[in-house]
Amino acid sequence: PQGAETTVGAARAETIADLMTPPVGVFGPQATVRETTEALREQVKTAFITYLYVVDPANRLLGLVVMREMLLAQPDATLESVMLRDPFALKADLPLGEALKQALHKHFPVYPIVDAQDRLVGLVRGSDLFANRAIEISGQSGSMVGVDKEERLGTSLTRSLKLRHPWLQVNLLTAFVAAAVVGVFEDTLSRLVILAVFLPVMAGQTGNTGCQALAVTLRGMTLGDVKPGAEPGMVRKEGMLGFLNGGLVGVTAGAGMFIYARMQGEASPLTMAGVVFLAMLIACTVSGIAGAMIPMILKRLGADPATASSIFLTTASDVASMGIFLTLATLML
Amino acid sequence: PQGAETTVGAARAETIADLMTPPVGVFGPQATVRETTEALREQVKTAFITYLYVVDPANRLLGLVVMREMLLAQPDATLESVMLRDPFALKADLPLGEALKQALHKHFPVYPIVDAQDRLVGLVRGSDLFANRAIEISGQSGSMVGVDKEERLGTSLTRSLKLRHPWLQVNLLTAFVAAAVVGVFEDTLSRLVILAVFLPVMAGQTGNTGCQALAVTLRGMTLGDVKPGAEPGMVRKEGMLGFLNGGLVGVTAGAGMFIYARMQGEASPLTMAGVVFLAMLIACTVSGIAGAMIPMILKRLGADPATASSIFLTTASDVASMGIFLTLATLML
Repeated sequence: PQGAETTVGAARAETIADLMTPPVGVFGPQATVRETTEALREQVKTAFITYLYVVDPANRLLGLVVMREMLLAQPDATLESVMLRDPFALKADLPLGEALKQALHKHFPVYPIVDAQDRLVGLVRGSDLFANRAIEISGQSGSMVGVDKEERLGTSLTRSLKLRHPWLQVNLLTAFVAAAVVGVFEDTLSRLVILAVFLPVMAGQTGNTGCQALAVTLRGMTLGDVKPGAEPGMVRKEGMLGFLNGGLVGVTAGAGMFIYARMQGEASPLTMAGVVFLAMLIACTVSGIAGAMIPMILKRLGADPATASSIFLTTASDVASMGIFLTLATLML
Repeated sequence: PQGAETTVGAARAETIADLMTPPVGVFGPQATVRETTEALREQVKTAFITYLYVVDPANRLLGLVVMREMLLAQPDATLESVMLRDPFALKADLPLGEALKQALHKHFPVYPIVDAQDRLVGLVRGSDLFANRAIEISGQSGSMVGVDKEERLGTSLTRSLKLRHPWLQVNLLTAFVAAAVVGVFEDTLSRLVILAVFLPVMAGQTGNTGCQALAVTLRGMTLGDVKPGAEPGMVRKEGMLGFLNGGLVGVTAGAGMFIYARMQGEASPLTMAGVVFLAMLIACTVSGIAGAMIPMILKRLGADPATASSIFLTTASDVASMGIFLTLATLML
């Protein structure tokens, strides 16, 4: 196995065919173990052969022979009699992410690749596939905040700047939306400056609740845990968690507001605490639902579900948290 | 290879020894290919054997024999003459994360495990190791916001609440710190309510810049890209990126402030725009540096570098962005 090599540039592959090498160790079903062994003796001089592949005259993959069976078989036995039938194979046009999911629990050193007619068209080394997978998955938390999966520690400063900067400008535009919402309530804020002090608390807390929902949902998608039809249940669960977490955190945050408002000599500290509690409860529910739905929507639109998901989520949760907080304050105070 | 099975519960393993099974296919260096093949014929009835391991009388691992070499060798040849010397092996006491990093580019179906004296003590299937790895890495974006790696889509609502809630209360405490900083400037805010409108813009933008640095740093650590002594360079690079991104975004944000302040008929819109620009420049630099340093500090403290890193980062960037913004505003306006 020490002969295995990792394909340089594999990180940029998009379908399984991009990682493929031509098939080697291919034989007919009637070849005997003896004649196959003799043929192999020549072939190994120029190729790295791990398994043997048995194909019919139309090149359709019939089976796979492991070397151990070759060693232990009678020399006159045919390959057909020692092969594993219907071996696991990957389709050549599979997107890489899908191929990785299918291969995750196999971990074979080499995978055969077949076309739509089950014809053997190539081989892919597991090390290439999985080096790729680790690189792919580990890029997810970056993707969420607008870091391209291409960026690694060795990426130059100017290239990093070029890759990351556009998303920061997008983030700024979405932040302006949140600012516009706050701007609507300038009158309330000028009347009660204490509310401005609690704006970052509301926004930060709601955002983090939503990020938890987002991370769990994305992870489920990555590991292939999401069963068809499971989406509504996931959204409901995250909404309920947002409600419960928002309620519990709302109690602490409301207590914080009560103490601070009393210290500042505000007129109605208890009502203020109530506004904080209620806003936290509602905003965290909204943010939990948004955290679960955003990657699902991105996926349905054909995009990578992680891409900039955190930026979209922050916008939703900023608008919800500060909008609800200031609306309630305007109505109740 | 179809015989490979994934160990249930492997996700909770902590060292390589937790995934280990007893060695099979072990022979002495002087055994011939013929007698080894005969012995193997019996052993495969009860064990799944992929490679043969050659050990000395003290059980020290000398080499590894692949079945292809067994098949092609002369029957009288000794294993010593066909084995690969100094095969790749994992130490039994390796933490799992370290083992995964070492095995990432190998992708062998089975890894031999040795003790401190190089004695063969067991075998680990690559599929177990790597199923684990995907689960491990995919948990990272959740870890950053306080989601336990144990949590999966199937986790019950009450368990999810119990796992996630404590970090939300921690997040709230840190948000109070940021609120306290804003509270110091209540006078400035009551004089210039427009500043309150820009608080979420400052905090959100700075936080996202830092999150980009955090994600890239964590990914480098996960993929083993961080060479010894590379840390100061990484921190410098992220500081410089924060400076450049902050400057460029500061221009847009400053323009936004200028337009808004003019619309509101504020006295000195240009100075206000300057305050936004300067605060963005400084705060994004601080946040970029914090994003790179936080996982390094967590690692040095013996913690998982991802754990709650996003919560610590948000605190640092909230305090820096709103503190610097309001300080500059108080001094200049």
